[in-house]
Amino acid sequence: MRLYDYADSGNGYKARLLLSLLNIPYDYIETDIMSGETRTPEFLAMNPIGRIPLLALESGEHLAESDAILYYLAEGTLYWPDDRLDRARVLQWMFFEQYCHEPSVAVARFIVRHLPADHPRRGELPALHEKGHSALQTMEDHLATRDWMAAGQPTIADLALYAYTHVAGDGGIALDDYAAINAWMTRIRDLPGYVAMK
Amino acid sequence: MRLYDYADSGNGYKARLLLSLLNIPYDYIETDIMSGETRTPEFLAMNPIGRIPLLALESGEHLAESDAILYYLAEGTLYWPDDRLDRARVLQWMFFEQYCHEPSVAVARFIVRHLPADHPRRGELPALHEKGHSALQTMEDHLATRDWMAAGQPTIADLALYAYTHVAGDGGIALDDYAAINAWMTRIRDLPGYVAMK
Repeated sequence: MRLYDYADSGNGYKARLLLSLLNIPYDYIETDIMSGETRTPEFLAMNPIGRIPLLALESGEHLAESDAILYYLAEGTLYWPDDRLDRARVLQWMFFEQYCHEPSVAVARFIVRHLPADHPRRGELPALHEKGHSALQTMEDHLATRDWMAAGQPTIADLALYAYTHVAGDGGIALDDYAAINAWMTRIRDLPGYVAMK
Repeated sequence: MRLYDYADSGNGYKARLLLSLLNIPYDYIETDIMSGETRTPEFLAMNPIGRIPLLALESGEHLAESDAILYYLAEGTLYWPDDRLDRARVLQWMFFEQYCHEPSVAVARFIVRHLPADHPRRGELPALHEKGHSALQTMEDHLATRDWMAAGQPTIADLALYAYTHVAGDGGIALDDYAAINAWMTRIRDLPGYVAMK
């Protein structure tokens, strides 16, 4: 398999982390989203939406969307549980991640790290910080009484949420007050095969 | 099963449509999101995120997130395909729906239908219309060469995307120029057990 990815992308890191946890070998192809490498005709032929991460399968087919890639890799492993309701809860938190968490926590980080200091989008940061803390508080409340987001075991829901949570500080969203999240992040880092973002 | 829902919600309609297609009986409990009925202590005890749709299972457990509810109901039926890559593609389009489609197409509709004519959020509409048309063009290009979003058969990816697409005009996003989307919507309406939004 080949993974088209961008080293600073938390969405890409989700796939890198699971590939490492599952000990699956793959070729890594750095794709610079800031210089238009996801907008070339060659890339758009593989993924019309023009986004990384993109997984190229041995069959020659391509799969996009970080959380769909997580599902594809996890099926048949311990990271995708056996029970139907447990699986639905895994997806519930993954949809929460894409709808409530990534658009604030990840976007704040992108603005801080990749846009100039005088860029007008910096004006979005106060609202993004408020929404980000709201999403983190939802996770904190949930993790206050359990070790993992769903199914009583580490699943792709944890990996999907860990990717941008653990670097939320990069975007100005401090994690100091989230004791349950910090304990959960330590559990994730202790998983055999864990690899850091970079 | 009981479905806590709001009649005008496309997210709720996803669950109602699949329950009808699968001929599953359920109790419908109208929950007025505009008057705070999803913010009561009783509702928050069932879903801490305070959103509909919410599916109450016969076991007494509750499941949130419209697309996770679709998965839960569809597993073991024709709306969730057998093949692992097909399933990943179904999820790919469902994550696309939550990340790229709902935040523009559904939010524009909400602003037009539920906020006063002089509400400041009306200023968001031009940007939402541009993003909404971008998401619809992605669907149009995809459907130009196939009948269904994924797996060569109707799946929950079609239902997830149909819910707000077919009422995009309510938010000022006209569908006239999307021939493939219109043909696909007709195919969905022809599915046995189809039920209109209201």
